[in-house]
Amino acid sequence: MRVIFNEELKAVADDLDHMVKGVRRAINGAGDALLNQNLEAAQAVIDGDIEIDALEASVVDQCVKLLAKQNPVATDLRVVVSTMRLATTFERMGDLARHIAEAARRTYPASPLPAEAQPLFTEMQAFLNDVADQTVAMLSDRDTKTAEQIIINDDKLDELHKKTFELAQSENWAGTNQQLIDVVLIGRFMERLGDHAVSAARRVVYIVSGFDPSKEPARDEDTDIA
Amino acid sequence: MRVIFNEELKAVADDLDHMVKGVRRAINGAGDALLNQNLEAAQAVIDGDIEIDALEASVVDQCVKLLAKQNPVATDLRVVVSTMRLATTFERMGDLARHIAEAARRTYPASPLPAEAQPLFTEMQAFLNDVADQTVAMLSDRDTKTAEQIIINDDKLDELHKKTFELAQSENWAGTNQQLIDVVLIGRFMERLGDHAVSAARRVVYIVSGFDPSKEPARDEDTDIA
Repeated sequence: MRVIFNEELKAVADDLDHMVKGVRRAINGAGDALLNQNLEAAQAVIDGDIEIDALEASVVDQCVKLLAKQNPVATDLRVVVSTMRLATTFERMGDLARHIAEAARRTYPASPLPAEAQPLFTEMQAFLNDVADQTVAMLSDRDTKTAEQIIINDDKLDELHKKTFELAQSENWAGTNQQLIDVVLIGRFMERLGDHAVSAARRVVYIVSGFDPSKEPARDEDTDIA
Repeated sequence: MRVIFNEELKAVADDLDHMVKGVRRAINGAGDALLNQNLEAAQAVIDGDIEIDALEASVVDQCVKLLAKQNPVATDLRVVVSTMRLATTFERMGDLARHIAEAARRTYPASPLPAEAQPLFTEMQAFLNDVADQTVAMLSDRDTKTAEQIIINDDKLDELHKKTFELAQSENWAGTNQQLIDVVLIGRFMERLGDHAVSAARRVVYIVSGFDPSKEPARDEDTDIA
């Protein structure tokens, strides 16, 4: 029974790993679409989101079957429940990357961003590319050091996100109202990508801690004031 | 065993019911804060979100204990898993209402919205107040007719949401860039509240259908193009 449980859990972990690698590709591709007007990259992110959604459904389905057949308790049970919740977080990250790709596709061959917003969004994207790498590494190694780095670093992304509002209200702002809408929404999507990575990181810390209740991530990370 | 399972499941259902009623209060209060500059209402929504978060943690905790002790299978198991996912959806709705309340508090005693945006947001809020009532009713009666109504009606909210962008780009727009930011973000929060209500409605349809796979809600409802 134990051997079967471990084998089946391994299969779910592999799917979750595919999922998070798909999310990394989506984040990288969305950035390429946004900053370099790469239409193929945009389309690949949009098409690839279907696969991420299918992987989520598969992970949840396998977890429900594991719960039914193996009746895991204690740590095993919490691993299965946490796996379902991680899959939901990653599915959402795929959606957010898709939204950025859709904005880039809509304005192609122009950028959705005015020129003065490029440096700030380039910085945010570089940050998110790092977060995407860290999320993959954290998950494959159950590495709490990387997870804690993701949690600590997120303040930096929140700072950059605040700058999108300052930019939109500055005297130098020369963009159209459509560009202002895109700056606000794309900035928000990027900030939310960071929040979800923090949620995932907290969940990994919770798993590795042996489900120490003081480390339980009870809620969404979205505490920014609008 | 069966009697204990049903009793414990009833306790979780009661917590979920408290949660969704808290979400309704939050949606109503956020609207009152936004449209009537009701500062007390804003603060009540912000403070009340802590209770919604605590209820989510409690629902998930009870579900994990139910899975461990009772080893539910088939329909019972899927009810428990769906209950956890509904709690997460409602927690998120509480956050979104809180964001709207925070925006209203930030600009008090002024409105975050320019005068020309009031009629549109009044219409969106009336829609969301109805959705909040329907969500409470759907959950307490496991009522698929109401659930299907929520799903069908959501197009109307998406239409209203699109009008926020049209408004922000119209020649009549006389607001500041800060107001434009608020129109975009508050509009987005309201549209997301509707999406989450649709997610919850699809989950209730799936539960009542006896977990017919063709009715499984596999993903987030957020398909709008940014």
